[in-house]
Amino acid sequence: MTRKIRLGAFLPGGGQHIASWRHPDQPVDGATSLEFHKRLAQTAERGLFDAYFLADNLSVSMGGGVEGGNAKVAGFEPVTLFAALATATTHLGFIATASTTYEEPYNTARKFASLDLISGGRAGWNVVTTATEAAAHNFNLDQQLPHATRYRRAAEHVEVVKALWDSFEDDAFLRDRESGRFFDPVKVHPTDHRGEHFKVKGPLNIPRSAQGHPVIVQAGQSDDGRGLAAATAEVIFTAHQKLDTAQEFYRDIKARARGLGRDPAHILIMPGVSPFVGRTQAEAQAKYDRLTSLILEEDGLALLKALTGGTLDLTGVDLDGPLPDVAPTEGMKSRQALIRQIADENGFTVRQLYQHVASARGHFTVVGTPQSIADTLQEWFENEGADGFNILPPWLPTGLEDFVDLVIPELQRRGLFRTAYEARTLRGNLGLPFPVNRHAAARAAQQAAE
Amino acid sequence: MTRKIRLGAFLPGGGQHIASWRHPDQPVDGATSLEFHKRLAQTAERGLFDAYFLADNLSVSMGGGVEGGNAKVAGFEPVTLFAALATATTHLGFIATASTTYEEPYNTARKFASLDLISGGRAGWNVVTTATEAAAHNFNLDQQLPHATRYRRAAEHVEVVKALWDSFEDDAFLRDRESGRFFDPVKVHPTDHRGEHFKVKGPLNIPRSAQGHPVIVQAGQSDDGRGLAAATAEVIFTAHQKLDTAQEFYRDIKARARGLGRDPAHILIMPGVSPFVGRTQAEAQAKYDRLTSLILEEDGLALLKALTGGTLDLTGVDLDGPLPDVAPTEGMKSRQALIRQIADENGFTVRQLYQHVASARGHFTVVGTPQSIADTLQEWFENEGADGFNILPPWLPTGLEDFVDLVIPELQRRGLFRTAYEARTLRGNLGLPFPVNRHAAARAAQQAAE
Repeated sequence: MTRKIRLGAFLPGGGQHIASWRHPDQPVDGATSLEFHKRLAQTAERGLFDAYFLADNLSVSMGGGVEGGNAKVAGFEPVTLFAALATATTHLGFIATASTTYEEPYNTARKFASLDLISGGRAGWNVVTTATEAAAHNFNLDQQLPHATRYRRAAEHVEVVKALWDSFEDDAFLRDRESGRFFDPVKVHPTDHRGEHFKVKGPLNIPRSAQGHPVIVQAGQSDDGRGLAAATAEVIFTAHQKLDTAQEFYRDIKARARGLGRDPAHILIMPGVSPFVGRTQAEAQAKYDRLTSLILEEDGLALLKALTGGTLDLTGVDLDGPLPDVAPTEGMKSRQALIRQIADENGFTVRQLYQHVASARGHFTVVGTPQSIADTLQEWFENEGADGFNILPPWLPTGLEDFVDLVIPELQRRGLFRTAYEARTLRGNLGLPFPVNRHAAARAAQQAAE
Repeated sequence: MTRKIRLGAFLPGGGQHIASWRHPDQPVDGATSLEFHKRLAQTAERGLFDAYFLADNLSVSMGGGVEGGNAKVAGFEPVTLFAALATATTHLGFIATASTTYEEPYNTARKFASLDLISGGRAGWNVVTTATEAAAHNFNLDQQLPHATRYRRAAEHVEVVKALWDSFEDDAFLRDRESGRFFDPVKVHPTDHRGEHFKVKGPLNIPRSAQGHPVIVQAGQSDDGRGLAAATAEVIFTAHQKLDTAQEFYRDIKARARGLGRDPAHILIMPGVSPFVGRTQAEAQAKYDRLTSLILEEDGLALLKALTGGTLDLTGVDLDGPLPDVAPTEGMKSRQALIRQIADENGFTVRQLYQHVASARGHFTVVGTPQSIADTLQEWFENEGADGFNILPPWLPTGLEDFVDLVIPELQRRGLFRTAYEARTLRGNLGLPFPVNRHAAARAAQQAAE
């Protein structure tokens, strides 16, 4: 089978671009409209996207601040939203973000397993450690845990969740009315985990889904983040502005995975891409300029602050001067470095910097025709830059519709993207292997040895 | 407006009765079937029920045991399930159980607010402290917290959640594209809670729903439980076998509420009732006997153990002898006392005891015609025994359909139950007042004083 581009759609109902809510195409209440999210899901499914992605914040976004025109202050909790959207779709996957720092593994395992069962095997978990001070303040802490502690807890949290997901073997349920045997107790397994951060006896009280368990997604880019991703992720969401840094990341992750005994083909690397699509280059540029003109100064500064976990406070600086030096902190190290890199490489003023990142919040912005955008995606895909992409339409629904109606057909013409879903599960569509239940595998191995 | 009976429907897809899965009417995989739960929700809505109720366990139910034919081992997480069911219904409320002991208030507040927004204001939160050792073992504890500690934490947890739900005043969102003012920062409020168990700064990142915030439901019956319920609950789910104990409870709660300055009419007391409905008494009795005959001995014993939080272990006792003495423990005190009371009052053997409670797990079982069942409900409703009932059909969907098709019309003929929904929100249908945002109320009071 020819390798195909995988596509995620990053679709917060409030839009990706900081000013998107001011665009006349986008419903002004999109962030809190179920109907609008349903329309987005159905459009993504029409475009044969693998999955609908949602980020999450355990505080008011923008670092907890409620200043200015911050349109991201409020929205749905992603897992509950996706449970509702699953009923309005049949093939689209749903990748929701949840925090390893501020949730307990039993609850995490359960809510994702429940979404997975509700959707018939279309769930994914984007594992995050949550890197804002504002979130810490909502969870009994005066300041957030150190970066390394958060990552150790994350690794253990994922380990426990995966163990909990294997509580019932796939054929554990007998449901034999005659004998009264509802399940086979031999095929139910306690977890019996006792680690640094968690003690969890198990078993989990929910069966596995049609895809075994939810797809594990990761987005960390720091050294700790890469280590966790190489060890546990099946999909990696990443941010790169240029092919060479994307390639460095891609090769590093695949090498780390190989080093850990994993098949590198089972870790899909998907950089974020924010597309402004026009039938001509001029039309695409006009769309970009239009949205950029809608950014308020205070929103631009709040965005830079939020993207760096609240550490980059530029209140009072000259907007038309260079980005001042800021000491690195515990929060979102990789994101701080990325913002700095964008400023340095482009020689941006503070204003130019926020205008640039506003469209995609640090992700790669492409402004072009279906052909030129397909050229770029193809180049990254064929040269160890990407296995697929997370598409972040700058505003909605138009930015998504433009991509579905104009870019997808071009990718299909080139044989780079599916023309129909291959499977009913997320894992099946992504071409990821079915995770055999560890206890069933152990029994099979033992029987083979006897 | 004449006072009407309120009705909740307690509909775990696996059935209420311990042997219900063995009944040929019930889908053997009902507990984990979304389609079956959807059918139940739509039947309840056809019956004009106020709400669909679900209990919850943070462990494999039956005290974490996986012995025997326990058909309750696996199911959906209620809030995700209800988010999906909300899209298949238009008026039915959804009351999900969540634990104050094993969740953080920010997460609790968010997931219920999200369900409330998704359903258009039809959510309720059944506040529980979670009283099993098995759950404690899934959340880093070697044994559960003392009863009194759990209740203090519960009271604080509810207080924080309600404060978080008031983060945004109802008119906080301006969404003015022209000025760029998405919201009015004066109408967004931090929580700034610092208490014994929680430090939560807020604000919550989700707006209020059409009903203000989810309805608060409680089921505690111990002294601590009654105190919490009188202080915070808007609906109380309770278990009584006889009118006189129901009256004692009803009057006590209403008096406590009045003592706390609350309007007793705003606390609806809804005992559980498990109905076996027949067109004749003989037909109803035959339905009861049929289901009772399907109970396995080991399931009966496991049920008694589970209902008492794992404390009543009767392994090896004579099933045809009396219930032996067991020392009371920290878990589910009220439930232990109730089980003992049922055994003593009826002079039951252990086998008779589990056969009796199997149908309704400690709730009131009625076996009769639509007329005799309506007589009983009317008697309780008109004599300070109940404001409504939680109907626990012993098996599904037939037990629910019998109630909807036979008992509801009888209640309607008597003018005791609605003939159409009054409102689109749960609160509206229950006749509960809209909770004015505390900050808006404070501002209004201040303006009135000036």
